[in-house]
Amino acid sequence: MDNNKGMEESALFVMDGVEATHDGMQYGTPKKFRKKKADTVNIRELAQQVRAGSRTHLSKAITLIESSNATHKVQAQELLQELLPHTGKSIRIGITGVPGAGKSSFIEAFGTMLCDMGKRVAVLAIDPSSSLSGGSILGDKTRMEELVKKPTAFVRPSPSAGTLGGVHKKTRETMLVCEAAGYDVILIETVGVGQSETYVRGMVDFFLLLVLTGAGDELQGMKKGIMELADAIVVHKADGDNVRLAKKTVAEYKQILHFLQPATPGWMSTAMPVSSLEKRGLDKVWGTIKEFKQIVETNHYWATRRQKQTKEWFQSMITDHLIDMFYGNPQRKAQVQLLERQILSGQLTVTQGVDRLFSEE
Amino acid sequence: MDNNKGMEESALFVMDGVEATHDGMQYGTPKKFRKKKADTVNIRELAQQVRAGSRTHLSKAITLIESSNATHKVQAQELLQELLPHTGKSIRIGITGVPGAGKSSFIEAFGTMLCDMGKRVAVLAIDPSSSLSGGSILGDKTRMEELVKKPTAFVRPSPSAGTLGGVHKKTRETMLVCEAAGYDVILIETVGVGQSETYVRGMVDFFLLLVLTGAGDELQGMKKGIMELADAIVVHKADGDNVRLAKKTVAEYKQILHFLQPATPGWMSTAMPVSSLEKRGLDKVWGTIKEFKQIVETNHYWATRRQKQTKEWFQSMITDHLIDMFYGNPQRKAQVQLLERQILSGQLTVTQGVDRLFSEE
Repeated sequence: MDNNKGMEESALFVMDGVEATHDGMQYGTPKKFRKKKADTVNIRELAQQVRAGSRTHLSKAITLIESSNATHKVQAQELLQELLPHTGKSIRIGITGVPGAGKSSFIEAFGTMLCDMGKRVAVLAIDPSSSLSGGSILGDKTRMEELVKKPTAFVRPSPSAGTLGGVHKKTRETMLVCEAAGYDVILIETVGVGQSETYVRGMVDFFLLLVLTGAGDELQGMKKGIMELADAIVVHKADGDNVRLAKKTVAEYKQILHFLQPATPGWMSTAMPVSSLEKRGLDKVWGTIKEFKQIVETNHYWATRRQKQTKEWFQSMITDHLIDMFYGNPQRKAQVQLLERQILSGQLTVTQGVDRLFSEE
Repeated sequence: MDNNKGMEESALFVMDGVEATHDGMQYGTPKKFRKKKADTVNIRELAQQVRAGSRTHLSKAITLIESSNATHKVQAQELLQELLPHTGKSIRIGITGVPGAGKSSFIEAFGTMLCDMGKRVAVLAIDPSSSLSGGSILGDKTRMEELVKKPTAFVRPSPSAGTLGGVHKKTRETMLVCEAAGYDVILIETVGVGQSETYVRGMVDFFLLLVLTGAGDELQGMKKGIMELADAIVVHKADGDNVRLAKKTVAEYKQILHFLQPATPGWMSTAMPVSSLEKRGLDKVWGTIKEFKQIVETNHYWATRRQKQTKEWFQSMITDHLIDMFYGNPQRKAQVQLLERQILSGQLTVTQGVDRLFSEE
């Protein structure tokens, strides 16, 4: 992982318009690059190349955004500011599901279908443990084999380091760069674990939950509230002997969805069977997303949600920053832990603990 | 409201052991008190009186906790520290439901039944718009008429001022004082609106959701994810012509609960019909809570959850404090709003907005 990160950083040094042989997929080991001062990066030129559709420059732009180097960070924001007027035109789709639900094979089949329909498709992964980056680590390159060959597809694994909050921020900014690069559909893959799908729900227009047949058993292992985030549920691997059970599962999910609050006002979340193996049901998913877009644009929630998401992103980054600054003092963590122990043992009230923490300032 | 608050503060000045005629229910207008310096409050003596079971002193202790006066705040924490070793022995039950679900009449009937069984029952309300405080404002004293007459009951409306975060903190501390006063069952009422039921779930052992018949229609108006917070669902007003429909609704909820993640590990959330009017099903609710306690104590989650709740309370108070300090600067809010506008209009990236906010420090 650390190895990979080092390589990504070095890739920054060829950003001044020199076309590298580095493959846009970032699946293999990048070739050695000629090193150059990062300060010579011409941001305006990089922005132009990204907008012109160069996948190599798009890769470099994302690497710049993912960099933790201070100079790069400033440059990344200049780049983003340059690209902002050209963002917002894609459909942003989040895809989640328990491990084993077949997210990679779904994205491979769905993305390939969209490319064949003439769409430009970008695939991002928010979780370090996702099949995208996981696949590259395990050398499992056969996943998305077909999709990565499409000239109109761009597949990018998530950064391998950083807190989830950081991944969240960077995936968001990466999504904006992909939009400026002219991708029509952005697919953001996340594993249904921890906070990641809440983050993804906070940056997409449409949220898709992949499940397997046998709803009852499986849902016990799913995250609380995840169904109420979903605009549609795909009952996956609906092939062979599984078809009949998949139909039953779809009916069960539809019934549950009827009782739950819809994820998007004005839209009734739905469920459908899909086989990525036999390529059946994929067109129905796309049809559902198009219908969703039409309804939600008409009731104006499409724009409202995006504005809300940006505001919430800003607010959450302010809060994250405050917490980071607070715990930036290395003694603080130890102090909090000590107070926590005193609170749990009944020596201190919670309010007294907080007062002690802030009285010394 | 402000009027009420002023009266509550003045009630503090008779805390040095002088028995006042002020009624513990706080439903009427408190009588005039002889004023005395707050500094003369003997905290140890107040703690002893609370522990001895004096409802008058319990009321005063809670008023001290709810006070925003700086001296009172310190005294309140001393009092709490004194009482901490005697807390934790009650069953803490949260009760929520949409307006009109009949929370007050349920608490009246359920609380009265528990008192008749020999239990000491304290009722707290976390939401300013709840029927408890609402009832007192509207002069609707007929609610809980029977319960407030019981010598083993204590009914306390929520503080009428302050942010929800503040109410949260104070309700928690009030709950601890009631425990030290020997109440066996604490019922915390909250309206199923906004964040309040998440706060209440974070301070109770058992969470009860009150609904009416006709699950499908009603759930559309309920908060997202609320069913996954509930350890049991009471289908209320299951009386008269409603009985058959209530049974059907119970079956529907049971089916949905089967597909959802349980609120408490090891416990299968359930649903049951109750009529507070005809006093039917109340014993079943209590039986369910007792069964829950037995199972969850056996799997050790009872203690684990309480510890987790205290830790999370501490963490959330730290974060609240950081946010309060940040926005304590009066120009800050205007600055954040200006940056937000620039971000929404595409002039600034979110990261640049955050950087500008913190670069001036």
